[in-house]
Amino acid sequence: MKRPLILVSNDDGVTSKGIRNLVETMKDLGEVIVVAPNSPQSGMGHAITIGNTLRLDRTDIFGDDVVAYESSGTPADCVKLAKHHVLKDRTPDLIVSGINHGSNTSISVLYSGTMSAAIEGAIEGCPSIGFSLCDYAQDAEFEHTLPYVKAIAQQVLDTGLPRYTTLNVNFPPKRNERIKGIKICRQARAKWEEEFDQRFDPNGRRYFWMAGNFVNFDKGEDNDEWAIANNFVSVVPCQFDLTAHHTISMLNDEWDIKID
Amino acid sequence: MKRPLILVSNDDGVTSKGIRNLVETMKDLGEVIVVAPNSPQSGMGHAITIGNTLRLDRTDIFGDDVVAYESSGTPADCVKLAKHHVLKDRTPDLIVSGINHGSNTSISVLYSGTMSAAIEGAIEGCPSIGFSLCDYAQDAEFEHTLPYVKAIAQQVLDTGLPRYTTLNVNFPPKRNERIKGIKICRQARAKWEEEFDQRFDPNGRRYFWMAGNFVNFDKGEDNDEWAIANNFVSVVPCQFDLTAHHTISMLNDEWDIKID
Repeated sequence: MKRPLILVSNDDGVTSKGIRNLVETMKDLGEVIVVAPNSPQSGMGHAITIGNTLRLDRTDIFGDDVVAYESSGTPADCVKLAKHHVLKDRTPDLIVSGINHGSNTSISVLYSGTMSAAIEGAIEGCPSIGFSLCDYAQDAEFEHTLPYVKAIAQQVLDTGLPRYTTLNVNFPPKRNERIKGIKICRQARAKWEEEFDQRFDPNGRRYFWMAGNFVNFDKGEDNDEWAIANNFVSVVPCQFDLTAHHTISMLNDEWDIKID
Repeated sequence: MKRPLILVSNDDGVTSKGIRNLVETMKDLGEVIVVAPNSPQSGMGHAITIGNTLRLDRTDIFGDDVVAYESSGTPADCVKLAKHHVLKDRTPDLIVSGINHGSNTSISVLYSGTMSAAIEGAIEGCPSIGFSLCDYAQDAEFEHTLPYVKAIAQQVLDTGLPRYTTLNVNFPPKRNERIKGIKICRQARAKWEEEFDQRFDPNGRRYFWMAGNFVNFDKGEDNDEWAIANNFVSVVPCQFDLTAHHTISMLNDEWDIKID
């Protein structure tokens, strides 16, 4: 039986611990190809590189049995480069992104480079998954997530995903208690309340650091924030049609704009 | 009567023709404050600046009657800076972004810096609109769009928008025929098929330019691509809950992952 082709990307860059763990886990499931950023790209959202050039270079960082490339591009660029240049006529059976160092629950899915790679996979019509660990440490502990990473990837290889959907999978940080299981969730209603820390450079010119506080407004127990807080793996199926379909008829009814 | 407070941003930067037209048009409707990028940020998607500093400087580029700032940040950063630093205790009655030099119909909403500023406005709970002209030229003709820009902004000031929604408004390029009117639409199903133009720098090292071809798969007449092709203004109400709600029950039914 032919081994599945698995494309791996991320947003923390090829040298991060998270992608190393993801590549090692995916090697048990299929042939692994890596195209990932050559430097950290956190918070890049669904950015792509327009009006600038892209680098793409081979790297042996994952050993001899993994074909791997590092790129100057964003996570979305990396998936595009993989699909349309590196792989060309081959279509991945699965695209996985991560494992991100940090949470991508709730509203963070919009800002997430990890998820932009997964969403780009879905746009390309490939089953895809973004994995994130709710622990920002560079030396975060990933061991407890790996049996779930493997099982979820195998599930998607076996049963696929509805077309044009991707999965946003988040793991609780390593705790004393074992993970309780998986919850299929919706995206929690939450936001970042930003604070801007104003400073002055040696020339006396002002600059800022953005420092956000995460605020969860969601009282439900069917969302990803609840799942993580209660030591479950959260799995949010995501799609990329942003249309607020339920408001179309209302606007059609309410608006009456005529320009002479 | 108190004049409404209107925050203006964009992704082409403060010097672009599109934002100049938008600011002039908004001055008829209220008090205008500008916080926009100091350089072009096209294709930045919903990127935010993490792990790097932000600049924010006053500019008099829009004349004496408009308080304006230019920032090194992304469009989403600009809205965050405006809301949480520049305006602080004042909440905009309307946030507008654009007018973008280039189309943001269908899938481009995901890659669009223009729309990320509008979506960020919606996240902050403010009525917001992203305006884009389907003409990429720096000296594009905006005149034919301005009566619609003004009327749509006035409509939203008058009747508001459903909470957590924003509008993705696209205008056809200047044609011989007059614009036929407004269509409230859904996002068309389309994608960019990328081609990577491979070149070599003077040191012999490889680099790429991304060159995309837009492919429209959508046969419907209720979507934004159809509207623009038929010389209507397209208005797509957008929301930022990416959950594919309709797939949750299916995944709950299909999956049976247990880790011992």
